[in-house]
Amino acid sequence: MNSKTQKHRFVVIGGVAAGMSAANTVKRSDPDMDVLIIEKGKFISYNTCSIPYFIGGVIEDYRQLIELTPDQAKHTSQLDVWTQHEAMAIYPDKQSVVVLNRDTGEEKTVYYDALMLATGGVPITPPVPGINLPNIFQVRTLTDSLRIKQYIAEHLPQKATILGGGYVGLEMTEACRRLGMDVTILEKFGNLMGTMGADITDLIEQHLLEHGVHLSKEASLHSFEAIDGKCGVVVAGGQRLDTDLVITAIGVRPEIALARGAGIEIGDTGAIAVNPSLQTSIENIYAAGDCTEVTHLVSGTKMYLPLGTTACKQGHIAGKNVVQAGSMEFKGVVGTTVTKVFDLEVARTGLSAMDANRLGFDAAASTITADSREKNYPGNQKITITLIVDKTTKQLLGAEMVGKEGVSKRIDVFAAALDNQMTAQALTQLDLSYAPPYAPPWDPILVAAKMALKKLS
Amino acid sequence: MNSKTQKHRFVVIGGVAAGMSAANTVKRSDPDMDVLIIEKGKFISYNTCSIPYFIGGVIEDYRQLIELTPDQAKHTSQLDVWTQHEAMAIYPDKQSVVVLNRDTGEEKTVYYDALMLATGGVPITPPVPGINLPNIFQVRTLTDSLRIKQYIAEHLPQKATILGGGYVGLEMTEACRRLGMDVTILEKFGNLMGTMGADITDLIEQHLLEHGVHLSKEASLHSFEAIDGKCGVVVAGGQRLDTDLVITAIGVRPEIALARGAGIEIGDTGAIAVNPSLQTSIENIYAAGDCTEVTHLVSGTKMYLPLGTTACKQGHIAGKNVVQAGSMEFKGVVGTTVTKVFDLEVARTGLSAMDANRLGFDAAASTITADSREKNYPGNQKITITLIVDKTTKQLLGAEMVGKEGVSKRIDVFAAALDNQMTAQALTQLDLSYAPPYAPPWDPILVAAKMALKKLS
Repeated sequence: MNSKTQKHRFVVIGGVAAGMSAANTVKRSDPDMDVLIIEKGKFISYNTCSIPYFIGGVIEDYRQLIELTPDQAKHTSQLDVWTQHEAMAIYPDKQSVVVLNRDTGEEKTVYYDALMLATGGVPITPPVPGINLPNIFQVRTLTDSLRIKQYIAEHLPQKATILGGGYVGLEMTEACRRLGMDVTILEKFGNLMGTMGADITDLIEQHLLEHGVHLSKEASLHSFEAIDGKCGVVVAGGQRLDTDLVITAIGVRPEIALARGAGIEIGDTGAIAVNPSLQTSIENIYAAGDCTEVTHLVSGTKMYLPLGTTACKQGHIAGKNVVQAGSMEFKGVVGTTVTKVFDLEVARTGLSAMDANRLGFDAAASTITADSREKNYPGNQKITITLIVDKTTKQLLGAEMVGKEGVSKRIDVFAAALDNQMTAQALTQLDLSYAPPYAPPWDPILVAAKMALKKLS
Repeated sequence: MNSKTQKHRFVVIGGVAAGMSAANTVKRSDPDMDVLIIEKGKFISYNTCSIPYFIGGVIEDYRQLIELTPDQAKHTSQLDVWTQHEAMAIYPDKQSVVVLNRDTGEEKTVYYDALMLATGGVPITPPVPGINLPNIFQVRTLTDSLRIKQYIAEHLPQKATILGGGYVGLEMTEACRRLGMDVTILEKFGNLMGTMGADITDLIEQHLLEHGVHLSKEASLHSFEAIDGKCGVVVAGGQRLDTDLVITAIGVRPEIALARGAGIEIGDTGAIAVNPSLQTSIENIYAAGDCTEVTHLVSGTKMYLPLGTTACKQGHIAGKNVVQAGSMEFKGVVGTTVTKVFDLEVARTGLSAMDANRLGFDAAASTITADSREKNYPGNQKITITLIVDKTTKQLLGAEMVGKEGVSKRIDVFAAALDNQMTAQALTQLDLSYAPPYAPPWDPILVAAKMALKKLS
């Protein structure tokens, strides 16, 4: 296939969330399209967010993470898949991509009618001495996770150091504790979970301590020191920590080298700029997922918020537009996430108070604690909610929640509220479900809204 | 207190959900107000919706259902409470209420500056022979539930018949099964759960059968026959059913006798008409809760939908308006409910397909089944969702859901969507939370919205 065929050909670079979503959408919508997926790694179509649960042993077999093997993609879904192939350059004028076979070293050129960049994000690597020691891992791909599993099986590490107290760091903390390791989290800033408010993060920290996790905040990383060829000491925040295993989880940056090389516009966020149809600045080239920036619907600004849900939605919409131009638009996100931290559900949506004030809003935050069920009903737990509200417009700007149950989907009510620019007043009137096993008559959402309203007046 | 005092006096008739919510709101907002609660029964401020769980033994002590005893109301909350007192007549021109002391038979007159009717609903009693037999119970008040508990303790019934397959009927079914009884549900219509669609109710029926419940649909009640002075046989739908206990749960009608006697306007629904400030047609008389009708925000029509959540909200808003006229409005409901049926969560919001078509909408219904968690994550369950969408405006009209987890608060996302007149298209773009323990990347809500959209196009 070294020349343009009669059929329309859709080439996807990157075979995980956004890429697979686009490929499947195109093939299902127009079976006559040739769809080729070019994937650098061995695996396609796997569930990245399940990796901590696979490493921790909650999910037993890595194959449970795989939605579609390359073989299934070929034979069941009629998708052409080249794994272990890396796209090296895009020539928009020729509508071609130069691809390297990583096994054989061969290069070949493929032509496209439509191209999609789903190159994803790459973990940020701390630029300190010792970073390349063999027991320092990042957690991004399925291959990463297999390496970690193998290392743990062979070396039985006792002490783990987690770099970064964001959600991946906390999920990996739980995984390592499940495997019996003594775990220390090193967080550069004064707070876990990025910009979340202290009313929420204090409860998370307390819960981590209850689960025997050591926490070192404002701990700037200095270096990794080798003992017997492996990292044995982490030097950070003036401390020296003995360690047998290091997991780095300090964030992700967009993978844009290929896009930049092709002359595709990069936004101020450092990620690929796309229009609502998910088209890049160059004709017939789409982009979706963790390599792109998104519009934040609360602030109206462009942000870099790499999330699996966004990648799936964008991939699907881009696919629809490849088949029929202009058929769907992706309007943006409100930034909803949820994380399991041992027995806690931790969720947020919209802007934190810190984000909001930094972006120029005049924001008020208020926090309540309420019951997850009717308080007489067995199993009732406390839920803490912080709402961030605009003092001028009275609109909801964001919500943060923590509790042992009933958090993960309650946050979605706030996500829907943000999507509709609801005010605190309007929130207090929501007609929410009530039955003693599931909620009190005044749902925590309503209690939070009433408190926010009170704070505004 | 037989004459008007200098202080403003707020008199509340009915001391449960709406009445207590109003009384507490008024006293908290203006401690100088005299607040008097007139309650026909022995108890005030209890949680009606927990009654099936108390009867079934999930909640062990009836006192756990009580928020505030009359004593606590008096001494902690500075509310005046007359239990065992029944309001017999209202004289709006004199701003007075004649009250009967049910213990002594004495009548007295109280004067009000503002009056609130929170007389609630009364269970509909099937008008058939034998209805007054002593082992036939309704489930409405705490006193009812104590009578049932006592009867069960003394007579150890083996066979229970539940009249009505709505949510109270199903909750009482579970309660009786927990207590080891053989249970038969008699439902007059062809469907459980009112107007819910068969895609949902079929799953509920199947689940009831798995839990050993007998179900007799389209079973019109004929009579109750006495054996040894108690109901021993229920005759319905041409069948004769042996029984030791009967629970009637065929619905509730508004208690409006007092309002009607005072000349207060009754709506076409048969319930008290109120404006958005919760005022009745007579000055200084408010009404809230199960005795009133509400505006359904999807249809824009008045409906009778007695629900605890609405009662609490209305009581609170009425109380605010008593203290400061026009300070808050109650705009209406979307009709959100959730019920536990053994291991199932069953929820709905908005209009069913049947309701919608009856009200003149051109409605399309579509049903999907999706995963509650990432499908590789242990504990994942199936959730079935029916969405009802307007074919013309493409707006969501209603949602119905059933599943073993993740239903009760997911329904609230649809409730918020209805509140904001969202279209199926807009629903597909909601930025919902995702993590493998709690949801798949395409949340069932999004899967349902995509299917509804597909059905529309």
